[in-house]
Amino acid sequence: MHARLLNTPSSASAGASSSSLPSAGGCTRHASWNPRLAPGTPASAQPSLSLRARASMEPATPEGEAGPPVHGVTNTVVGVLGGGQLGKMLCQAASQMGVKIAILDPLEGCPASSVCSEHVVGSFSDGDTVREFAKRCGVLTVEIEHVDAVTLEKLEKQGVDCEPKASTIMTIQDKYRQKKHFSKFGIPLPDFVEIENLHSIEEAGEIFGYPLMVKSKRLAYDGRGNAVARKKEELSSVVASLGGFEHGLYVERWTHFVKELSVIVARSRDGSTVCYPVVETIHKDNICHIVEAPAEVSDKIKKLATSVAEKAIKSLEGAGVFAVELFLTEDDEILLNEVAPRPHNSGHHTIESCYTSQYEQHLRAILGLPLGDPSMKAPAAIMYNILGEDEGEAGFVLAHQVIQRALNIPGASVHWYGKPEIRKQRKMGHITIVGPSKNTVKSHLDTLLKRDAHEPKKDSPRVGVIMGSDSDLPAMKDAAIILKYFNIPFELTIVSAHRTPERMEDYAKSAKDRGLEVIIAGMVASLTCLPVIGVPISNKVSGVDSLLSIVQMPKGIPVATVAIGNAENAGLLAVRILATRDPELSDMVIRYQNNLRDTVLEKAKRLEDLGWEEYLK
Amino acid sequence: MHARLLNTPSSASAGASSSSLPSAGGCTRHASWNPRLAPGTPASAQPSLSLRARASMEPATPEGEAGPPVHGVTNTVVGVLGGGQLGKMLCQAASQMGVKIAILDPLEGCPASSVCSEHVVGSFSDGDTVREFAKRCGVLTVEIEHVDAVTLEKLEKQGVDCEPKASTIMTIQDKYRQKKHFSKFGIPLPDFVEIENLHSIEEAGEIFGYPLMVKSKRLAYDGRGNAVARKKEELSSVVASLGGFEHGLYVERWTHFVKELSVIVARSRDGSTVCYPVVETIHKDNICHIVEAPAEVSDKIKKLATSVAEKAIKSLEGAGVFAVELFLTEDDEILLNEVAPRPHNSGHHTIESCYTSQYEQHLRAILGLPLGDPSMKAPAAIMYNILGEDEGEAGFVLAHQVIQRALNIPGASVHWYGKPEIRKQRKMGHITIVGPSKNTVKSHLDTLLKRDAHEPKKDSPRVGVIMGSDSDLPAMKDAAIILKYFNIPFELTIVSAHRTPERMEDYAKSAKDRGLEVIIAGMVASLTCLPVIGVPISNKVSGVDSLLSIVQMPKGIPVATVAIGNAENAGLLAVRILATRDPELSDMVIRYQNNLRDTVLEKAKRLEDLGWEEYLK
Repeated sequence: MHARLLNTPSSASAGASSSSLPSAGGCTRHASWNPRLAPGTPASAQPSLSLRARASMEPATPEGEAGPPVHGVTNTVVGVLGGGQLGKMLCQAASQMGVKIAILDPLEGCPASSVCSEHVVGSFSDGDTVREFAKRCGVLTVEIEHVDAVTLEKLEKQGVDCEPKASTIMTIQDKYRQKKHFSKFGIPLPDFVEIENLHSIEEAGEIFGYPLMVKSKRLAYDGRGNAVARKKEELSSVVASLGGFEHGLYVERWTHFVKELSVIVARSRDGSTVCYPVVETIHKDNICHIVEAPAEVSDKIKKLATSVAEKAIKSLEGAGVFAVELFLTEDDEILLNEVAPRPHNSGHHTIESCYTSQYEQHLRAILGLPLGDPSMKAPAAIMYNILGEDEGEAGFVLAHQVIQRALNIPGASVHWYGKPEIRKQRKMGHITIVGPSKNTVKSHLDTLLKRDAHEPKKDSPRVGVIMGSDSDLPAMKDAAIILKYFNIPFELTIVSAHRTPERMEDYAKSAKDRGLEVIIAGMVASLTCLPVIGVPISNKVSGVDSLLSIVQMPKGIPVATVAIGNAENAGLLAVRILATRDPELSDMVIRYQNNLRDTVLEKAKRLEDLGWEEYLK
Repeated sequence: MHARLLNTPSSASAGASSSSLPSAGGCTRHASWNPRLAPGTPASAQPSLSLRARASMEPATPEGEAGPPVHGVTNTVVGVLGGGQLGKMLCQAASQMGVKIAILDPLEGCPASSVCSEHVVGSFSDGDTVREFAKRCGVLTVEIEHVDAVTLEKLEKQGVDCEPKASTIMTIQDKYRQKKHFSKFGIPLPDFVEIENLHSIEEAGEIFGYPLMVKSKRLAYDGRGNAVARKKEELSSVVASLGGFEHGLYVERWTHFVKELSVIVARSRDGSTVCYPVVETIHKDNICHIVEAPAEVSDKIKKLATSVAEKAIKSLEGAGVFAVELFLTEDDEILLNEVAPRPHNSGHHTIESCYTSQYEQHLRAILGLPLGDPSMKAPAAIMYNILGEDEGEAGFVLAHQVIQRALNIPGASVHWYGKPEIRKQRKMGHITIVGPSKNTVKSHLDTLLKRDAHEPKKDSPRVGVIMGSDSDLPAMKDAAIILKYFNIPFELTIVSAHRTPERMEDYAKSAKDRGLEVIIAGMVASLTCLPVIGVPISNKVSGVDSLLSIVQMPKGIPVATVAIGNAENAGLLAVRILATRDPELSDMVIRYQNNLRDTVLEKAKRLEDLGWEEYLK
């Protein structure tokens, strides 16, 4: 019916007009079918709505070339195959920039339908429908890769501007083909092999060992189309559960990963790329559950992950944003898991946390506009998917409870996709929490998830306190007390420059990668770029020798030295340094200083009131 | 015609169905009129679209009370009088949260029409139209204050939930009444008086002096309805230009303001308020041109402005966000200029720069949801209005040029309202630039405005270097050399703790407000919460006395002390501190240290190659 609607404008418009009768009462725009006007149609027959009057039907042309003046950002209408939540968020970004989007999706009330410029009801996996839809768009893109790529390829040959290219969609929608493609380009991947019968899968099992990951080549997402055989005897049933060998299967060596990472890469029409910060994706039952931005991995791993992702995307054709899902192995290797040729769940957080969201970036890329800045404007973000926990109204009640908690959390933004029905594990919305630090957003996530406060939660330390010997602890504990007071996560250990020189070197060199921001210690200043604070410890004589040895570092190697034995001041200095970019902490420092002042003023008053003789008693 | 459309559903739907014919081709939803279904309408007659199926027609009820389960954030449909750019941005925030908005606006292609759930074409200043519109909404609000407030008051008596209250709209839409109201509540205002004839305005001129500000009581915005009489002789013509005394006029004493500030205040249904950071608004020809967030004024002024704004809003009735425009006078006084009972141009930047935008906040407030966090998630933002510079296509060409430049600026977001026509001074869109510092966003604004690069541009200093005497300069210059090398804006001056104690106090106390992040100096540590670095200066004896005096600050007052005379290390320490949150700077520090290492290694090689005797020559 819907496809027919597309192919027979007259019956479609009849349907539209009947649905606008008072008895039906529905808002009709999304079901209406507006055929492309033939060139030469008299102006009086042109539609009166601004959308139609201003929408260019030409493929995107570089700015500055001949054509009518551009109204706003672009005159080009963007056509999107698919109208789910990714399409909806694309439309939201487009609405802000005044860019017109037409959506092709079979579902009348699909999420994007409420915010697109036009919704054409029809199937994006039907060739005729896609061809008809393409006529109204200056550039064609996807929010789901399971579209009719063969038609896209034909359209491209006819001059339709598809971004990314049909070849990319084809490569990606078949996961085995995708793996072969990336393998050819030297992208690191888990070992994989195509299987066609029980013999070949058993052979693969012998080579790769168990557990063995068995995957469908096509139409696999959110864990669907994947199954695990724990031993040889399970192979037959696992293959059957995936629809049998004739369905198209391959196997992968099981990856013992430490973390799953993701990098969103944007590529412009001229082939230049920008990469978003590496994030960690945390899955639950194979569905993306939580995304942490940025990922808590070393700078080295970040660089490696970004370079693998960029290399992978450079091997594909066309413009747009791409998500590259990666495994971080125990050996600090990065392996590519899979690529999505479109905005991605792991980039939802960018709406609130980055200068340019992945959705605006996708539009910029496919429209030939300059790519935006992908870096984070806030230090930390966590995205939590609202997945259906139950069917029907019970599911809505549970989802609303999560939303109510989110609305009470500072820095939390609630996204609700408006899907008419709820099912278990269905992505109904998401919540992004943005904040001044990882600790803040993590503790907000705990509140959102009502996580037990007793649950041990390890905050990664921001300050490292190191001593040459445990004999310094009675003095150095004062730094620890201050850091604890200001709620700064820190670590305290023994690292001797003279007795454990290698350990000191390791400690200092890895400090920044491990997330430390300040070090309280003397001798490591030359091995790190972090601010280093030195505390001279008094010995049996005086401590002046220690003071002079710490303060007297050569030019180029600064150590912030405090008074002999005054580790409290070292802690306070570390706090002041952290507070330079943290208004909350800065307020705490001010209150702390006011308390010091008040204590002295109180003492002064008491001294004046009592007199010095009484005071001394 | 449009009002009639509203009152006669049958003719309206006929219009809708005809506009969906292929020959008309337009998308019809916005022109359609969907009358509210009578209770008891059989389910089969219910509209099929999700909007109608899920929209509650009941006034907002506190969550948790009886009623159908809430789908998403709320079931309540929000009705908005007005569909301009403020309405559009309200709809964008609503779309994200899955909240349904119905818009009442007479213009078919009004900005909000492209993104609302439903657009009712009709006049918001017509009582019958507003009454009919209210039936479809759970809560009614405004995006423009020039609505039919008398009807709102009647509707309120019939139980319709208007936020803010009709009383508030009435008070605000008459500027003289507004001033009287705030005056009664003790809010500081410029002196003002009602005028009814030439005699009374001449009398006012004598009392207030000239220039004299003459204002219309009603329908005044963006400078319209205001005129200035420079002398007594101009009074008649100024009054005539405003439509004469019978139009309703008053006069205000001319305010010699230093800056115009604005505070957005959100008030929830329970009366609690939160305030957004104080911003500076820069007007051009009486129209908001640029908004800087946060305003560059002292913390004291920020607190004063916020408290005046909050007090003003607490005197009004109803929930929502309110903009309070303020004057900062030469004497550091804050005077209220006027209030808008709705989201405001001075709060556009909050979309990108604050945890909760003013638009989401307005929805939260009127829907009875918890208010969100109004603080900034990025350190600095500037908003620039894209005003029409010409009529017709020429105007669009000029606007597009600004947009093209903006698309090349990191951190810039382009908003285009999609108004079908452009006129001089019309607000067509805006650009918000967000960045890690005021300097960054200001220099980006310069690029956007193609401001002359020769124009002296003073970067506000991030590090302050102060000396007790110019005799310290030969030593302290090394800190300046390092800061210059790392391209850190800094200031260097003489402030003596002993000879200019008040100056030192002023300096230290204002340091943070002025944007300093680190101070290189000894004695000021107790007067600031910033990290302070001390450089002992050697005297004729040794400098150890200076070292001991600086390093030996009491507990609670940390000073990062470096070696005697080693201002270079002080500079490097300041750089390391700034680099804790600046990856680029951090990379520079690493390169600097590698250079130091390489220099030593080269010397070592040369020493080994040449031998020590040759080397010494």
